[in-house]
Amino acid sequence: MSRTVAILGATGLVGRTTLAILEQRAFPLDELRLLASDRSASRTLRFRGRDVPVQAVSERAFDGVWLTLFATAADLSREWMPVARNAGSIVVDYSSALRMHPDVPLVVPEVNGALLDARPGVVANGNCVAIPLVVTLAPLARLGRMVKVVLASYQSVSGAGQESLDELERGVRSGLDGAPPPRADGRAPFAFNVLPHIDHFDADGWTGEERKIVGETRRMLDRPDLAVTPTAVRVPVRVGHSAAVTVTFDRAVDPAAARAAWQAAPGLRVVDEPKAERYPTPLEAAGEDDVLVGRARRDPFDECSLVYFFSSDNLRKGAALNAVQIAERLAGVTAGTR
Amino acid sequence: MSRTVAILGATGLVGRTTLAILEQRAFPLDELRLLASDRSASRTLRFRGRDVPVQAVSERAFDGVWLTLFATAADLSREWMPVARNAGSIVVDYSSALRMHPDVPLVVPEVNGALLDARPGVVANGNCVAIPLVVTLAPLARLGRMVKVVLASYQSVSGAGQESLDELERGVRSGLDGAPPPRADGRAPFAFNVLPHIDHFDADGWTGEERKIVGETRRMLDRPDLAVTPTAVRVPVRVGHSAAVTVTFDRAVDPAAARAAWQAAPGLRVVDEPKAERYPTPLEAAGEDDVLVGRARRDPFDECSLVYFFSSDNLRKGAALNAVQIAERLAGVTAGTR
Repeated sequence: MSRTVAILGATGLVGRTTLAILEQRAFPLDELRLLASDRSASRTLRFRGRDVPVQAVSERAFDGVWLTLFATAADLSREWMPVARNAGSIVVDYSSALRMHPDVPLVVPEVNGALLDARPGVVANGNCVAIPLVVTLAPLARLGRMVKVVLASYQSVSGAGQESLDELERGVRSGLDGAPPPRADGRAPFAFNVLPHIDHFDADGWTGEERKIVGETRRMLDRPDLAVTPTAVRVPVRVGHSAAVTVTFDRAVDPAAARAAWQAAPGLRVVDEPKAERYPTPLEAAGEDDVLVGRARRDPFDECSLVYFFSSDNLRKGAALNAVQIAERLAGVTAGTR
Repeated sequence: MSRTVAILGATGLVGRTTLAILEQRAFPLDELRLLASDRSASRTLRFRGRDVPVQAVSERAFDGVWLTLFATAADLSREWMPVARNAGSIVVDYSSALRMHPDVPLVVPEVNGALLDARPGVVANGNCVAIPLVVTLAPLARLGRMVKVVLASYQSVSGAGQESLDELERGVRSGLDGAPPPRADGRAPFAFNVLPHIDHFDADGWTGEERKIVGETRRMLDRPDLAVTPTAVRVPVRVGHSAAVTVTFDRAVDPAAARAAWQAAPGLRVVDEPKAERYPTPLEAAGEDDVLVGRARRDPFDECSLVYFFSSDNLRKGAALNAVQIAERLAGVTAGTR
């Protein structure tokens, strides 16, 4: 049968990255349907040497579609997922809408890809920090039982979408010879600044982003008892999310064993030669498929704790790449054939 | 008697900030002597409406000086401190040279200023992350006994000096329409990047900056048993160091009690109304004397752990202001009279 794949939210930052990755990885599809909310419709995007028109999403937009990549935020996902499902399309949803839903698998193929063997109709794609975090944590399970993870993130502005990236650029230009001005909506600038604020605050002072990191990490690792204590912070970087991680085990751990575990794991590249100034940075991670991990060292006061740092392309592994990897596995593409 | 104060390293970023703070705070001095290593000599700097010549430091440069502010790195401090001491000058040293020396007090006036009552001849000024960290930790001692501190820093480029700040500016300009180029020495750019690397790496993978944060925090809090686990990271911000901190006590702690303790403490401003988007940022901290502290919340998995965020002007409280406050106390200036 011919295979039609759709991208909803095709014109956004993550949608365009998804398109590029489908082409780069020669995803097995016969037709690509690009969908967007009305506002962005009536344009074309380049795919495999052709200009593919972007269609406004509609009740009939998913007819005949095998799988739709929902490169959308939660509101649009909630609106259009039932329509896609009714049309018979598998859904890979990038948004947070169903990530904690007990009937919807939340998948990082390297970590819990076996969940896809049950051929779920809807698969959730994780948060852009939670995905690389579990890619780095999962291989460490062989070192001992993890009991606690404390992390602070350094998240790029592209994680907030194209408009925020435009705000960063405007802020940097305006701030070249003085203080960067506030954003157009009056909020504190991204440029030359650090903002300990991603997503909404709850009554206890935690952000939605931090709650996602907690819940999704526990879920993807199938460790509902794992303590995860994050601080999510925006930094003036375009692409690439990083985090400083301290993970505590139930026994003493060796940084060399952590490096060996990472080296043997898929989706990771160990960059850990500090004396040669080799360690993960977002600038090096941008455009890369692998999560970069390094600066592995033992907590000087707790032999059961390991400290490390990772950087990952939030548009790729943190979003589009992970979704395409899910779709590949559902399409029966094995790692060796792509 | 007439009081002569000298600044060694007067032309550097921190030296110039020191000069500005002496003027802003109307420091009680009759003569100001500006000293620099030869390279920067033969220029003038403005102080109290006059152009003060910058003199090359020499064997006789400290004659008649009551107190010298060493706004210098460790090598210059080691070279000239004996000369200043032989000339009878009190030394406040900004460098790391003597911070861990058992005979030299390491002072944050709000925290352990009583050490100055012994009239030490040499006083060490702390690291630019350790100082604001202890300003935020010290008031929390009333909540319980601290047992562990995990932190990740977001350190501005001015912490690496004027040349690095110039590198950031060049990198941002060159990186406006593409990837920022490497620094002049070939190292990874500051611009649009995050570098988990400040100071040299040791054999265990820890940086000098991280070791300083550990040792100085323990020393300034007089808690040689306190576990401190830091990751020190450079971010593309001009001025203002921040950190995400998780501190664990020997008993349950309440974020409201932490806020109350901070509000009652000197040198701090609580900025903690997240719903109104009020939290510490380096852009707000820059130019301020107070350490901004906020985002206080309880660790959801450990009632004995408190999580928070601070931002502080690294050139002021992290360096020049703290040194001038030490000098004020040695000069007998009380907080109320300045």
